[in-house]
Amino acid sequence: MCEANAYLKDGVEEVLFMEAVDIIEPHDEGLKLVDIYGKQKFIRASIKDMNLLNHRIVLEKG
Amino acid sequence: MCEANAYLKDGVEEVLFMEAVDIIEPHDEGLKLVDIYGKQKFIRASIKDMNLLNHRIVLEKG
Repeated sequence: MCEANAYLKDGVEEVLFMEAVDIIEPHDEGLKLVDIYGKQKFIRASIKDMNLLNHRIVLEKG
Repeated sequence: MCEANAYLKDGVEEVLFMEAVDIIEPHDEGLKLVDIYGKQKFIRASIKDMNLLNHRIVLEKG
């Protein structure tokens, strides 16, 4: 399975925000994330970088 | 492997822009994409949506 974990950058730390993310949709105000179970989260953040082979998405606020 | 293909939305069509994308880094002016072989492409576009289980990233210009 090719889901990824989304981390929110908080200073120098990266805090796990959501596991097993399948879908990411940027919107004007932030990002909608949907995990493989269909659970949705919305966050006022943008994508800082992502590395699909490492299953890793880093988000940053604002 | 969990790489994805990046498509660029062009009107109603979605045209393959880059295969086997591993890394995506948004910058002020656009996106840097790096494929699993290390090849880099830069595009003045943003992420419209992505679906990791389908290995599919859709970009849009501007």
